[in-house]
Amino acid sequence: MHNSALTPPVPLPTASALAEILDRVRSRSPLVQCLTNIVVAPWTANVLLAAGAAPAMVDNPHEAASFAAVADGILVNLGTPTEETARAMRLTVAEAAESSTPWVLDPVAAGGLAWRTALAFDLLERNAPAIVRGNASEILALSGGRGGRGVDSSDSPEAALPAALDLARRSGTVVAVSGPVDHLTGGGSVVRIANGHPVMTRVTGVGCALGALMAATSGVTEDALLASAAATAILTVSADRAARTSALPGSFAVALLDELALLTPEGLEAEVALSAAAGASA
Amino acid sequence: MHNSALTPPVPLPTASALAEILDRVRSRSPLVQCLTNIVVAPWTANVLLAAGAAPAMVDNPHEAASFAAVADGILVNLGTPTEETARAMRLTVAEAAESSTPWVLDPVAAGGLAWRTALAFDLLERNAPAIVRGNASEILALSGGRGGRGVDSSDSPEAALPAALDLARRSGTVVAVSGPVDHLTGGGSVVRIANGHPVMTRVTGVGCALGALMAATSGVTEDALLASAAATAILTVSADRAARTSALPGSFAVALLDELALLTPEGLEAEVALSAAAGASA
Amino acid sequence: MHNSALTPPVPLPTASALAEILDRVRSRSPLVQCLTNIVVAPWTANVLLAAGAAPAMVDNPHEAASFAAVADGILVNLGTPTEETARAMRLTVAEAAESSTPWVLDPVAAGGLAWRTALAFDLLERNAPAIVRGNASEILALSGGRGGRGVDSSDSPEAALPAALDLARRSGTVVAVSGPVDHLTGGGSVVRIANGHPVMTRVTGVGCALGALMAATSGVTEDALLASAAATAILTVSADRAARTSALPGSFAVALLDELALLTPEGLEAEVALSAAAGASA
Repeated sequence: MHNSALTPPVPLPTASALAEILDRVRSRSPLVQCLTNIVVAPWTANVLLAAGAAPAMVDNPHEAASFAAVADGILVNLGTPTEETARAMRLTVAEAAESSTPWVLDPVAAGGLAWRTALAFDLLERNAPAIVRGNASEILALSGGRGGRGVDSSDSPEAALPAALDLARRSGTVVAVSGPVDHLTGGGSVVRIANGHPVMTRVTGVGCALGALMAATSGVTEDALLASAAATAILTVSADRAARTSALPGSFAVALLDELALLTPEGLEAEVALSAAAGASA
Repeated sequence: MHNSALTPPVPLPTASALAEILDRVRSRSPLVQCLTNIVVAPWTANVLLAAGAAPAMVDNPHEAASFAAVADGILVNLGTPTEETARAMRLTVAEAAESSTPWVLDPVAAGGLAWRTALAFDLLERNAPAIVRGNASEILALSGGRGGRGVDSSDSPEAALPAALDLARRSGTVVAVSGPVDHLTGGGSVVRIANGHPVMTRVTGVGCALGALMAATSGVTEDALLASAAATAILTVSADRAARTSALPGSFAVALLDELALLTPEGLEAEVALSAAAGASA
Repeated sequence: MHNSALTPPVPLPTASALAEILDRVRSRSPLVQCLTNIVVAPWTANVLLAAGAAPAMVDNPHEAASFAAVADGILVNLGTPTEETARAMRLTVAEAAESSTPWVLDPVAAGGLAWRTALAFDLLERNAPAIVRGNASEILALSGGRGGRGVDSSDSPEAALPAALDLARRSGTVVAVSGPVDHLTGGGSVVRIANGHPVMTRVTGVGCALGALMAATSGVTEDALLASAAATAILTVSADRAARTSALPGSFAVALLDELALLTPEGLEAEVALSAAAGASA
């Protein structure tokens, strides 16, 4: 587990740096191992394919760890854990530490449900993820606060920022708080991305797909703050465009996949609503 | 388990009462716990979100029962049960009795397959559901008749009505028989809703999503017959509209999600093809 | 297990023979039992429904074997096996031998992952499938070669043809190698189908759905080479048409379901790019 206070400062992400990450996803097609839930598995695979990554849902205890050694990035999403997938998650995260494969934790409904919350803490202790992505309630819960009523969030990303900074520093991870304005931090600098549309909350798995995209971008850069910002920009700029086609949930979801495939690095750079501020302390 | 013969008569559902239920779903966004199958989980979540409810697929034995205490309504769908989800179903249904959370049973392929049929009877005995929703073959099977050849039905809702009345009376539940004309009964009155389109049978999980919507509407009214009728009307009126956009299965499914989001209480009231008849005896 | 060298030669598939198989799928609506993965289960069911078949995802060890006795065709797809589904697969394949129900093996990621590769070989030994469908890397792996990096293929169908012929002869099965040009062989004749579009690789589960369609067509003809060719033609001719509507992944997937429902035997016969060559030896 690294401590951000002891690592050299990294430059703040810029719009052109985000565009460069999209370019790398397209050219390298990172292999993304997903241990995710039954509700979003198809959608997650389709989002990764549309964006240019290569999904592989290897989530059984016999094979997950060995696959972690060859994957470019790993997503662990706690949406519908079973005994078997929870065991696979523990093995995968341990192997990811051995093979230095970056992994992303999406602690779905952490705080509201005891078993998965304990699993989230167990995974965090085994191997610091590159990125923890959640809504405000989930981040508050992992930082010791209360959780939400389920998978949606009753807290704003702004209200969860102190918890995000605290979790990032204590766990040595980047924390991405999703919401109307996404807040991303490695414990020092804070990056805000203001793209996106309310219809995203009317389609299941948009947040889960964002975690998967972060596993993809983590496979093409070692700068986890940049990876989290690039994935957020890829998804939310595409969502802005899709919502201009339709803000109704069925046709929006279809258009979002289309726009993910159409998005160019130039378009991303032009349309991302990015602000980044260096932290008072790292 | 309540006996409909001992409870005061409830008024027959009217189109305006159905519209009022849709209004409540929109304003309250009931939290719907779904223990459902791997084929329809994504679609079910998207239907609930489009209609205005909040889905949460909590289906593991560690967490399902505790979630049942806070959910507004629960769906138990037997489409692809596993040892673990079957155990979670038993625990959830027992807790639902303790916490008076209404639950809906969707006995997919009951009668045709022995293990799940036994599971369905076990769940029915633990705690009378607010609503049992199935096709004619499934309802016949639960009432002691023969089952169908799988997940589709070779019987008509009309032919299954005596079985539905019998099951409703014996189990103290509302029984909803899906088909070209949906038949709904609490053992006395019979409500018929004649909306819908044949393309609904060419998209997987439309019936399963109806069960989920019934869990949502059960979370906003204690009148289970009204809840089942409102959910049926929400889905089938939206389907009528979607089929006017496209009667081909891919684009129909997309349009159905859009129409669920667009449907207003006024539109529902104007377009529902509802007939209700008081029963000879309750 | 039959040996193709000992069976009488079957005529090479013609475009009109493929059209006849589509006609039978429409009129008989074969019941297709699917033991498949959590990523593609919804899409697979929707593809089968759109094409006119009747999917039933019965994949638990309590019920899968008994269902195999009544199904018209069975798909076993190794995408996300669990202990429970792997046990169900073994029981199902054994029962399929007893009841002479044709089954199709889709060995997703075989070669790249050890546990499922062993499972694939175990299933092949229990009961020769009517058809093995995979990408080139998977077929190479089952024939003793190396596997790919995951679920996609880094080998061409042409390069895998010797392995396909070898696997077909040794296992007494038809082998279908998916790719830009699909190659199908029972160990003697080779059928090539050159329809399809690159966007098919940007939608998850298109190959998996092809395996499911082969289980459907296997339910309406005993000629497994014809069944595999008909399913390939149904999917890829529909894909050609859908790609003319949109070559973007979200809208392509929707259009593909629509085109599967619209495809007529006449259209299939007119548009299939079929070539068939008798083998030097059978």
